[in-house]
Amino acid sequence: MTTSGLASERSAVIGIDIGGTTIKGARARYREPDTIEERLRRPTRSDAGPAAVVAEILAVIDDLIAGSDVPVCAIGVAAPGLVDEARGVALWSENIGWQDLPLRSLVERHTGRPTWLGHDVRAGGVAEFGSGAAQGANDAVFLPLGTGIGAALLTGGRIHDAQGLAGEIGHADVGHGETCRCGAQGCLEAIASAGALVRRYAARTGHVPAGAEEVAARVCAGDPDARAVWDDALDALTLALSWVASVLAPEVVVVGGGLSLAGDLLFGPLATMLEARLTFQRRPRLVAGAYGDEAASVGAAILARKAARAASETEPWP
Amino acid sequence: MTTSGLASERSAVIGIDIGGTTIKGARARYREPDTIEERLRRPTRSDAGPAAVVAEILAVIDDLIAGSDVPVCAIGVAAPGLVDEARGVALWSENIGWQDLPLRSLVERHTGRPTWLGHDVRAGGVAEFGSGAAQGANDAVFLPLGTGIGAALLTGGRIHDAQGLAGEIGHADVGHGETCRCGAQGCLEAIASAGALVRRYAARTGHVPAGAEEVAARVCAGDPDARAVWDDALDALTLALSWVASVLAPEVVVVGGGLSLAGDLLFGPLATMLEARLTFQRRPRLVAGAYGDEAASVGAAILARKAARAASETEPWP
Repeated sequence: MTTSGLASERSAVIGIDIGGTTIKGARARYREPDTIEERLRRPTRSDAGPAAVVAEILAVIDDLIAGSDVPVCAIGVAAPGLVDEARGVALWSENIGWQDLPLRSLVERHTGRPTWLGHDVRAGGVAEFGSGAAQGANDAVFLPLGTGIGAALLTGGRIHDAQGLAGEIGHADVGHGETCRCGAQGCLEAIASAGALVRRYAARTGHVPAGAEEVAARVCAGDPDARAVWDDALDALTLALSWVASVLAPEVVVVGGGLSLAGDLLFGPLATMLEARLTFQRRPRLVAGAYGDEAASVGAAILARKAARAASETEPWP
Repeated sequence: MTTSGLASERSAVIGIDIGGTTIKGARARYREPDTIEERLRRPTRSDAGPAAVVAEILAVIDDLIAGSDVPVCAIGVAAPGLVDEARGVALWSENIGWQDLPLRSLVERHTGRPTWLGHDVRAGGVAEFGSGAAQGANDAVFLPLGTGIGAALLTGGRIHDAQGLAGEIGHADVGHGETCRCGAQGCLEAIASAGALVRRYAARTGHVPAGAEEVAARVCAGDPDARAVWDDALDALTLALSWVASVLAPEVVVVGGGLSLAGDLLFGPLATMLEARLTFQRRPRLVAGAYGDEAASVGAAILARKAARAASETEPWP
């Protein structure tokens, strides 16, 4: 039996998703990293600075390790912004406020476990492409609509990451002219993310909704301001999907993140409007993610096995 | 010595690019398929129907074979529109007017030579990525601006073709609202292709220019109508390149086709405007194609070797 064979029988992996508002921790069996056995959620507290966020990440990992009845053999961490996977460095995140943070080695030194640092959106793609809503597809896109918008791209069965720089569709120009926090005008995520729906509804009405769910509920209740910001988001998403269909021609687009929980309110009009926009291009299937808002933490748990395998090649287990 | 070794020493390959206005034929040594030794150009005569175009293609091939002092071992054909490479079928071309044409077997039966049927834009990409302006890049885009606009995408060192459906950036919506011949509104190629420059200049002035070169010359001479259609094309291309940079993050974008011959009139403002549009995204290098308007015929000659190798595995050479 190989060392990774031993790991697979007896141990667990941990996946961490560092979101703009919530740190999501997940523990799963090594053999079934896509089946979460234990969840932990804590506020990200990015207002307290990067050091406080790192401390909270380590605390979540400690608690998941302490609660496990089998040894935890590896950890995967999914970070937002720009991530250098090869070096294990979180290069930049506007939401968290860190820059050039060697997060992989910080976690490894604290826990003594091999760790993989990945990008949150691509980690979500690893989950949805591998065993989720795009399982079996060769060409697919994972598009989580959350605080921001990014995309993971599957081209010919492989994730296209361009050294961590690909997939920034949230900062493609859909023509609305409003300024994005990145400094450019017209960015998709400034009008179609869950964060944008909340902000734009508040700007119109003076009432700050609890989240995009509240905006969606108000659309259903006939609120014309909610309808206006919702329709703006749908227009922008349709345009973005038509670009994706024309240029990448994916078989399937998996829409994830908070907004995807709106179900038919989102998917119904989006499919109709996309159909009307395209002519000869391939129509992608539009589906909701299988892992909801846990795609990145599941993906991080799957990626933890990469760290375990890499470690088992250099040192004996356990 | 292997059979393909024999082929490589003693023989030639032919590459054919079936353009909307011109059929371009090229003959090269098997060992150096990217160095054209003999060229032949004939008008496409698409107004005479698909059968006449096929007859002309076969005549070009016959003439290139007849003029060769070494045996021609294989043929590559690059076709526009939608192409099923695996089956060797030209699925659809609006310019040529054919549909579901088994072009590969037609050429094979006529010539007795193994033939590869590919897509014109991706064939051009094969040339520019392999030994042209993007040589050595892992992530690149080839963007020929000709009668229409398409793109070949290199992701992680491989061409992403999505069963022949990827790269239709010419039919992505850049927001100008004019109707494209595909039936949609706002398509990039309806405002920024060489064909669009000619058509839009004629619509403004009543004078039909000889080609996009004439429009470019008029821009340099201070013609305000030429300047207006040129600036519209630049705006649209900047938007398209900003999408490409945000989503695919290529290291380099190779601009080819007739418009690329405009040099600084195109590349200067395009680089400046793209730089102004992007914030944190990777800036692709913008370069002119190394093969000018011969990228597709060179790529077809390179692809001919695939047909030769496939044939040498099933039957002895010669």
